[in-house]
Amino acid sequence: MKRKVGIIGVGNVGSQTAFSLCTRGICDALVLIDKDEKKAQSHALDLNDMAAFTNPVTITTQDYVELRDADVIILAAGPEMMAQEDRLTELDETLEILDDVLPKVMMTGFDGIFLVITNPCDVVTYFVQKKTGLDHHRVFGTGTALDTARMKRILGNLLQVAPDSIEGYVLGEHGDSQFIPWSTVRLAGSPILEGLRASVEKETRDAGWAILQGKGCTNFGIGTTATTITKAILADERRIFPVSVFDEEAQVYLGLPAQIGREGIIFTSCPKLTEDEEKKLQHSIQVIQQAASK
Amino acid sequence: MKRKVGIIGVGNVGSQTAFSLCTRGICDALVLIDKDEKKAQSHALDLNDMAAFTNPVTITTQDYVELRDADVIILAAGPEMMAQEDRLTELDETLEILDDVLPKVMMTGFDGIFLVITNPCDVVTYFVQKKTGLDHHRVFGTGTALDTARMKRILGNLLQVAPDSIEGYVLGEHGDSQFIPWSTVRLAGSPILEGLRASVEKETRDAGWAILQGKGCTNFGIGTTATTITKAILADERRIFPVSVFDEEAQVYLGLPAQIGREGIIFTSCPKLTEDEEKKLQHSIQVIQQAASK
Amino acid sequence: MKRKVGIIGVGNVGSQTAFSLCTRGICDALVLIDKDEKKAQSHALDLNDMAAFTNPVTITTQDYVELRDADVIILAAGPEMMAQEDRLTELDETLEILDDVLPKVMMTGFDGIFLVITNPCDVVTYFVQKKTGLDHHRVFGTGTALDTARMKRILGNLLQVAPDSIEGYVLGEHGDSQFIPWSTVRLAGSPILEGLRASVEKETRDAGWAILQGKGCTNFGIGTTATTITKAILADERRIFPVSVFDEEAQVYLGLPAQIGREGIIFTSCPKLTEDEEKKLQHSIQVIQQAASK
Amino acid sequence: MKRKVGIIGVGNVGSQTAFSLCTRGICDALVLIDKDEKKAQSHALDLNDMAAFTNPVTITTQDYVELRDADVIILAAGPEMMAQEDRLTELDETLEILDDVLPKVMMTGFDGIFLVITNPCDVVTYFVQKKTGLDHHRVFGTGTALDTARMKRILGNLLQVAPDSIEGYVLGEHGDSQFIPWSTVRLAGSPILEGLRASVEKETRDAGWAILQGKGCTNFGIGTTATTITKAILADERRIFPVSVFDEEAQVYLGLPAQIGREGIIFTSCPKLTEDEEKKLQHSIQVIQQAASK
Repeated sequence: MKRKVGIIGVGNVGSQTAFSLCTRGICDALVLIDKDEKKAQSHALDLNDMAAFTNPVTITTQDYVELRDADVIILAAGPEMMAQEDRLTELDETLEILDDVLPKVMMTGFDGIFLVITNPCDVVTYFVQKKTGLDHHRVFGTGTALDTARMKRILGNLLQVAPDSIEGYVLGEHGDSQFIPWSTVRLAGSPILEGLRASVEKETRDAGWAILQGKGCTNFGIGTTATTITKAILADERRIFPVSVFDEEAQVYLGLPAQIGREGIIFTSCPKLTEDEEKKLQHSIQVIQQAASK
Repeated sequence: MKRKVGIIGVGNVGSQTAFSLCTRGICDALVLIDKDEKKAQSHALDLNDMAAFTNPVTITTQDYVELRDADVIILAAGPEMMAQEDRLTELDETLEILDDVLPKVMMTGFDGIFLVITNPCDVVTYFVQKKTGLDHHRVFGTGTALDTARMKRILGNLLQVAPDSIEGYVLGEHGDSQFIPWSTVRLAGSPILEGLRASVEKETRDAGWAILQGKGCTNFGIGTTATTITKAILADERRIFPVSVFDEEAQVYLGLPAQIGREGIIFTSCPKLTEDEEKKLQHSIQVIQQAASK
Repeated sequence: MKRKVGIIGVGNVGSQTAFSLCTRGICDALVLIDKDEKKAQSHALDLNDMAAFTNPVTITTQDYVELRDADVIILAAGPEMMAQEDRLTELDETLEILDDVLPKVMMTGFDGIFLVITNPCDVVTYFVQKKTGLDHHRVFGTGTALDTARMKRILGNLLQVAPDSIEGYVLGEHGDSQFIPWSTVRLAGSPILEGLRASVEKETRDAGWAILQGKGCTNFGIGTTATTITKAILADERRIFPVSVFDEEAQVYLGLPAQIGREGIIFTSCPKLTEDEEKKLQHSIQVIQQAASK
Repeated sequence: MKRKVGIIGVGNVGSQTAFSLCTRGICDALVLIDKDEKKAQSHALDLNDMAAFTNPVTITTQDYVELRDADVIILAAGPEMMAQEDRLTELDETLEILDDVLPKVMMTGFDGIFLVITNPCDVVTYFVQKKTGLDHHRVFGTGTALDTARMKRILGNLLQVAPDSIEGYVLGEHGDSQFIPWSTVRLAGSPILEGLRASVEKETRDAGWAILQGKGCTNFGIGTTATTITKAILADERRIFPVSVFDEEAQVYLGLPAQIGREGIIFTSCPKLTEDEEKKLQHSIQVIQQAASK
């Protein structure tokens, strides 16, 4: 019944995910691993200082052996949060990290779920699955879950409505080729006015960049997204999220609505797309395929 | 019935407090103010990206007028998190910030509670009260609430028990002259072994420094502390926290157990101290008085 | 910033709503009123016994004057939970209760929101508005919010998916003439198989009856529904719920998607209906009109 | 990582515990068992109706086999909530229930924790351990945890302070021979005025009776108590609660401060008692011994 989560990479994103997990009481054991040992230890102390006010969580650091019985490992390691707009350019450095980290994880006998945050998310998820050899349903990425939250924030702001009352998804790449299948987007059962769509789609795509400009990273939104998905795994919630899942036909990972439970991805389901949306999906697949073929 | 919190200074600590407030759904409106306008706006966007997964919070930035009807203003502005061990050395720069910020706040007609995080916490709280002219019970600091959480974390770790099952307080300065009145500290109704006390007291005092070394700031513990106190104000919880309150006799602010509700401090109560503890309290008062007499 | 909720009628439904509000920490003051004074007082004591483990809530009983500054009054008074299947038959007894209770409430100067649970919900809500003279947007009923939750539970169970991942609404009467506009119901952006629809619609309509048979009342689902709507009011969430709102054209209350915030109903929006669904809506309106014309 | 709780007996107390567990999202699977099959099924449906607003929980009913991998079984079965003031008189009927129920549980291979609510709690816990043969640390009762919450509620009300800011315990029998070791009771590190003690002790002892008079049962406080203890087990919180634990010397169960985690009771610790308190403890032990010797 223990709930143990490992986080590899506790920079801005990984550490906020840890903070969110502890604050919301979602796991009772955390393993923090980072190339900077002192940073991992300091985060552990700082997170433990919260426990008198929130939930007691057992936190260990830097010990891969502790990951052997983790239920979920969140991969947030990567080059420092990018100054580049395009997420695909950070890949090489990340692949080196994977080659260092993943063998150490798999040697422990780890048999849980890999949730990948590191960008370019779809491509990194693809390589994590390939390099670990874990089943596709046990490896997936946060993908367009964050973009979907952003679309809801932007529309919610425009329409003065709570973001979670907006239904719908952003699909495809967690990157510039993402798109919004507008037939899935509704408020109170009604579709969104056509006049609003183009600007919302653009603002959603650029949202990460806009945040990056002012604070040098994005961490609150993505940390909360990863935490919420982790909760769905640990509690076997069987909820639907648009996450980066493996597409058999395209042979890459990309953002599609998928059901998440204790075993990872239960099923993936793409809503009916218009011809134009189908083209955007295929374009997004090509962008990811090209990056993954490196 | 609206619950509005202002945060002045959204560096590591202020922004983490905002993240904690949003994650826990403690307020429904937030006002973020920072000398770096773009940073405040980016934090607002990033916090809003969480709303699809947590609670909708209306966030505005940089507008002092929005503070006029805030229930609580959290002061987290200050020089970048110190490389110095002693919190009293950062004061001058902070006083300049107060002279800039506080008149703008008070001109709005603000009539809520000031919760001060900025270090040296006891001294800054003293000056915030003096410069705003608000009643003493409406201005207080996080004080030794964080140190108390740390003492509970350290003891809890030693004794393998949940931190919040440890009872007791750290009192005095949120700084090097703090002390632990051991007669207040108990586990399951029993006192703590004398042999453990000295090392726990030292590790508690040095806890901030230890975290600072590895991650360059402390933000998770303090952000959670400030959030928990803010909840006690907003929900009129009438809970006891060791916070930095005004001591009539000493004419300074220092960490003592106090009851917190909608009107701020309801009462302050110092537990019965041993002769030795009383000396430590007086020493702590002197340290704060000296700093406040600048 | 205080959040005060009054509950009139603390039988099975009202008392569980109180329990849910206290457990979730949604209000900080509760006023319980019941024709049985001792029962109200006992519930207050029993609810207060929770506070050491959950959230401190100030609870008063039987004092109408305390309602003058309540933010929300939940009306759960009514004849003991019916043995009859049709909710419209309990009306007469309930109208007598309204004539006793509502003048006492309005004499206090109450100016908050009325949330009506008492069945037949749509008709009782109609009379509460009429008898109090409050604006239509300040008086509404839980309506088909519970039926919608049931439809999601039933579909979720069939499809092995979390109920809140099902989108869509039950509309019309909170009673036998309710209907499901299937165009609004989706899972992962896709519509529900036609073959499932008839049985889901029937099971949803009969859900209350099925529960009643075995436990003599329904209280957990409806208490949670009322609590969740109350939270949306208190925190000004601006979320969409299918609740019983006033329809200008039909001049009665009925279940439609509506946005809820601090001022009550912000807007109401009926999704595009098929011809057949439109007929069902009109039938539902007629059923309610007939009951309201008594 | 699954968290499964079984509840045997879903009358007022057991069903309220189920409602609290679902509302707070503490487990993800529930097994409800009752002599009245239809009631268990109706509670399951009603609890599932909440899921669209709270947390998805898989609920099964009446199937003992489902208990084989439960983490915790809560025993709330017993004769209908007593009209008698003294809890020891209901024992005979309860022992018959145990002889029916416990063999069915143990035949499944159940190897989790038994948490006993049924009154007389200390004596029933004693027999549950004896009849199941489970280790003493895996069988314990809610004991004086509820009485402690009541003492905090009563003192909190007198002193106008949040109940959880009161420290201390009620010890001994969950019944008339219980007592308050006043040396453990403090507010803000200070003891409680002697003048208040006798009336608080009496009101605490009579609190259940007072609630029973008005509403015919007590369920909110005890359901919340059992839920909070269950959370401590499932999340391995290692928190201290005054619960009914086995005392080696006295060879019975009685209320003492104990640490609770995944394996049940980790350690038990009686605070230093005055001579008078020691006498009360011995008296309480005798009362329980006599009842258990039947």
